[in-house]
Formats: sequence, C-alpha cells, structure tokens
Amino acid sequence: MKKYNVGVVGATGLVGREMVRMLEKQNFPVANLRLFASQRSRGKTLKFKGKEIVVEQLTPSSFKVSSPGEKPSLQARLDIALFSAGGSISKEYAPLAAQEGVFVIDNSSAWRMDPEVPLVVPEINSHTLSKDKKIIANPNCSTIQMVVVLAPLHRKARIKRIVVSTYQAVSGAGQKAVVELEEQVSAIASGKKVKPMVFPHQIAYNCIPQIDVFLENGYTKEEMKMVNETKKIMEDDSIAITATCVRVPVFRGHSEAVNIETERKITPQEARQILKKIEGVVVVDDISKLKYPLPTKAADNDETFVGRIREDQSISNGLNMWIVSDNLLKGAALNAVQIGEELINRKMLGS
Amino acid sequence: MKKYNVGVVGATGLVGREMVRMLEKQNFPVANLRLFASQRSRGKTLKFKGKEIVVEQLTPSSFKVSSPGEKPSLQARLDIALFSAGGSISKEYAPLAAQEGVFVIDNSSAWRMDPEVPLVVPEINSHTLSKDKKIIANPNCSTIQMVVVLAPLHRKARIKRIVVSTYQAVSGAGQKAVVELEEQVSAIASGKKVKPMVFPHQIAYNCIPQIDVFLENGYTKEEMKMVNETKKIMEDDSIAITATCVRVPVFRGHSEAVNIETERKITPQEARQILKKIEGVVVVDDISKLKYPLPTKAADNDETFVGRIREDQSISNGLNMWIVSDNLLKGAALNAVQIGEELINRKMLGS
Repeated sequence: MKKYNVGVVGATGLVGREMVRMLEKQNFPVANLRLFASQRSRGKTLKFKGKEIVVEQLTPSSFKVSSPGEKPSLQARLDIALFSAGGSISKEYAPLAAQEGVFVIDNSSAWRMDPEVPLVVPEINSHTLSKDKKIIANPNCSTIQMVVVLAPLHRKARIKRIVVSTYQAVSGAGQKAVVELEEQVSAIASGKKVKPMVFPHQIAYNCIPQIDVFLENGYTKEEMKMVNETKKIMEDDSIAITATCVRVPVFRGHSEAVNIETERKITPQEARQILKKIEGVVVVDDISKLKYPLPTKAADNDETFVGRIREDQSISNGLNMWIVSDNLLKGAALNAVQIGEELINRKMLGS
Repeated sequence: MKKYNVGVVGATGLVGREMVRMLEKQNFPVANLRLFASQRSRGKTLKFKGKEIVVEQLTPSSFKVSSPGEKPSLQARLDIALFSAGGSISKEYAPLAAQEGVFVIDNSSAWRMDPEVPLVVPEINSHTLSKDKKIIANPNCSTIQMVVVLAPLHRKARIKRIVVSTYQAVSGAGQKAVVELEEQVSAIASGKKVKPMVFPHQIAYNCIPQIDVFLENGYTKEEMKMVNETKKIMEDDSIAITATCVRVPVFRGHSEAVNIETERKITPQEARQILKKIEGVVVVDDISKLKYPLPTKAADNDETFVGRIREDQSISNGLNMWIVSDNLLKGAALNAVQIGEELINRKMLGS
C-alpha cells in the first residue's frame, strides 16, 4: 500500500496530540510524520508507532519543496498537513502549504465558511472534496456530532428546524482549560478562592452560557458556527437552526439536547432503525435499563452516541434526542484523519 | 401584627432547613414554630431566631386539635404546615393536617396536578388560593423559575410553544446527592473508583439526561412536570411545551436554555423592559461585559435571573433566553413561604 508524508501543525496541543494518536490508531498509511509547533515547543518529542518524533518549529518555509538547483530539503515533502494551531496560524500557513501542493485539513474556524473550501464530515459530504481544493476545513466539534446524527434523518424526513442546547466539555478549550477545571475543583476543596483565567467565569460546579466571543446579533460565535456550518455540511440553507452553547464542568465529551421538526413524520422507532445502520453512530436508548449516552462513557470513543429519542408532543412532526461524542475525537482529530482517509480513497493524494 | 403557628414537615432535609431559614429571613409572623421529621431525626434541634427548636416525630396525631373533654394538646395548633418530606408522606399526612384546618403548602409532586389543589407561584396565580382549599401545592423547582420569567411575556405576546433544556443542580436531589458529588470528585482526585448511589450514573464531571423516573411516553417525570405544571400555573392548556431535563455537576442553582415562540412579535429589548419591572426577576444581560446569569452567582439568592435574551432567527416570532435561580430558594423553600405570606395578605389564615 502506498504511504504518505503527513504533517501535524499544532502537534503539542490537546487536539494535535489526539491527531497523532488517531493517525496511529486508524493505521493511516504514514511514510514520514512531521510535527510542527511554535518555537516554545521546538525540540519536544511525541511518540508515534513506538518512535520519538522531534517537534519542528513552524516557519513559512516548513512546507517548501526545494526548487531545481536548490539544496534539497532534508525533510520529507508533505502530502497532507493536519492543522490545529488556532485560526491565525491557519489563516497564514494553510495557503503556504496549499501552494506547495499539500492538502491542508484545518481544524480551526478560519476557512470553514469560505465558499471555495470544502467543510467535510466524511459520512455526509465527502463528495465536496476536490483535487484542486487543497484547503479543507474540519467542522466545529459541536456541529460534527449533531450532523452525523441529523443528516440521515434529514434525508428521510427533511428537517425544517433545529433547536439545540449544548453541554460542552472544557477540553474543547484546550489543555489549559482542562487544568483550570482541575485546579478550581481542588482550590474549592481546600477553601481557596478561584481565579478564572481561561474561562470568563468559574467553571467548577458552574454552567457558563458563553463559548467563544459574542457577535452583534447577541449569539456567540460558537452558536453561529452550529447554525452556519450545519447548513453548509448538509447542503441545505433552508434548515432553520437556533443554538444555545453552554460550557459545563465535564472534562471530555460534548452533550447536546436536540429538538427537530421534520416535514414528514418520523417516529422514534423509525429514527432508531435509521440511525442503527449509520457507521460511526451508536444508538444507546434503553430507558428501561436507564441507558442513554453519557459524556463519561463517550470519552475516548470514536463514535457518536444518540439516545432519549422521543416524540416531541408539542408539534406534529417533532423529535427530541440526546447526542454525545468525544469532542477531541469525532469532534476534531478523528474526523480530520477520516478526511485524510477519504482523500486516499478518492485517489486525490500523490500525483 | 397577628402571628401564626407554623409547622415544617421534613424539617431536617435540605429544603426543610431552607424553609426554616426563609421563615426567619422573610420575617414571617411566626408565633410558634414546630418542626417535624421521621423518627430518625427526633430530638435533633434546628435554630430559629436564635432559639433551638426540638424536632418532633411526625405522627398521624401531630396536627390533632384536642376535642372538648380531651386533655388539651401541649403543642400549638398549627395555622400553616410547610411540607417537604417526599410524595408519600404528603399523600398520607397532608389530608390529616387539612382536616384539622391547617393550610398545607406542599413541596412534593403528590398534589400538584389534583384539579382541586391550587398550584401556586404567588407572582402569577395567587388568585387561585381559596379558604376552602387547605392543601396548596408548591410547583417543581425547574417550573417555578421558568414561569416567573415566561408569564409576563405570555401576557404581552402569548407564548405558543416552549422548548426548554435544563442544567439542574444536584441539591435538587437532596443532601445525599450533594454529598455524592463531593465524594465522587474527591474519589476521582485520588484515583479511586466511583460508585453511584443517589444518581443512576456518576455525576462528577458528567451530564445525566435523566431526572426522576421514566414514563411510558419516553419522557422523565421531571420533564412532564415542566410541561403540565407550566400549563396549570399559566392557566393556559394551549401552550405547547417540550422539555429535556439534565442533571449537571453543579451544587446549587438550576439553569435553563429556554426557546419560546410567541403569537405576537416581541423584541429582546421589549422582553428586557417587561422583565425589569417584575418583582423577583433580575435581568442580567450585558454581553459586552460578559454578564449573564450563572448558577454560582444565583446560589443563595432569592431572585430568578434571566439573560442572553436574543431573537431566535429560525422563526418569525421567537426568543432564546437563559434562566437561572437557586433551586432550593425560589425553586422550593422561598416560594412556599411566599405562598404563606399570600395567605396572610388575603386574610385566609386564622378565623
């Protein structure tokens, strides 16, 4: 099997590390793996398939292929680069990589709504991938787990409207946020005062109805990501969506209370039947045994879990459901690696 | 000012203790306070206005008034009894008290949907109180804080439909539940295994989409309480409501993401204007300063806090908002004491 040179930009971050782990776990055909981070992390090593790989500092020439006559680069020319180093790094470096013929799979929000950039959840819209579109966007974590479940229902019954409330884990805000929750919990246990740094307010034993910054319309950027990205991925601007995004003191695993109104009637039983056949989706819905998705159970799992599927008795064609997935895996690193796999399947890599 | 004999049944529980505290804080005109609990708590004392009051064991004759010829009871004949000792105690003892002419204000769900029993949030429907209806129900905590905010908007614009997702604190499940969260957090910190006792699953760092038991329609009892009690309190069966109730690792303060669709258009600005004038409601809604309601800030406060009021762009006449209140105070003990105050205002006490 042909192997490919893969880069991970932002390799030392929470998602970056998961990207490296997912490349190994998914047995992605990696020839050489190059890891990039800021100067601060230069020289750190990360383990990949039993080998320690030294982290390089990301520079504008990191993706450069030597021109004829130049001294050939010592480093492997990349086929794919997975980016998870924040929006401004993506804005600056993704075009540099793309220019050198590298497929960029970008986990930031920088490119997602660019009409030239495919925004891909492989189960749903991998047909939007194209050999010419070197920059590919990985959607927002909350969006991915929701559309994985809703797209099959949309195909069956046409979703007219979505009302979603999220319960999002702190790991979505990076390693520092995880540490902040741990430290606040231990500070409170020893009667000390809590000083929020990463989050705008105490997150321990609290719910913060703000994720990302506020926009002029009163919504947060996270909420509008769910609205806009869902429409783009499901390729249907007519779906009406409204979202409330809330940070909760959970380490890993986003949960969502999702209410949908469909054009055609769909019973909970039918919805379960449809979803049971969807790869990557696990129906956990046996209330007689108190079984439903939980973030602690979804953590470290690849799948998106759905349960509490029940008829919404307040409208004619409505369903409520509860969707949970690991925000760092299907919500980020795994979906990015799966996009890479799709590039291979579609023979878009190499030349 | 006339003073009244007041009893608290279930006085040693989390809500019972808050009832005693609220009677004092609200300066309720108490002549004698009698405290009741199960045999286990007999002889315990609770402080009220600087005096230690001994807890009596609740028995079928606790509310008995001595008949002519009988030896007169040593204990004060009650005017009001606040009950918070669970549904089965309420079912059995509330009628015994009512029979003796005692007004029962019951915090359990036992009597709430009885058509003969007023279900009261004083700001909204105290006109349903009546001298003949000795048993009065205190609504579910999640319902109270929602209707306090929604009733004024309903009067203005007629609410057609409500979609609500809750983020409920563990104290709603009593003292043992509070201890369970504390113990699980400390067990996890020291690498020990967590054994859920009060909740069906680990609550530390988790979200459990189940509060109370499941019903045949796939909803939990808590979710259907929100649906049915809201209609009864707002005296409008035509309001369509659907709820998802979720337990989160917060000690005190329930939060709710509430989406409403109204018959007449109401802007966020108008909604804020209306709500600012409502007693017991505080509008905390300045996103430019990252101000919105938070459970940690609502804890120990009497008010219901509302913020993140914004237009729902997915329908013509829709609003989203975030409502937070202390589930033990306005959600339970305070509302019960306020019902008692209303009985006094309406001259229904004494004879």
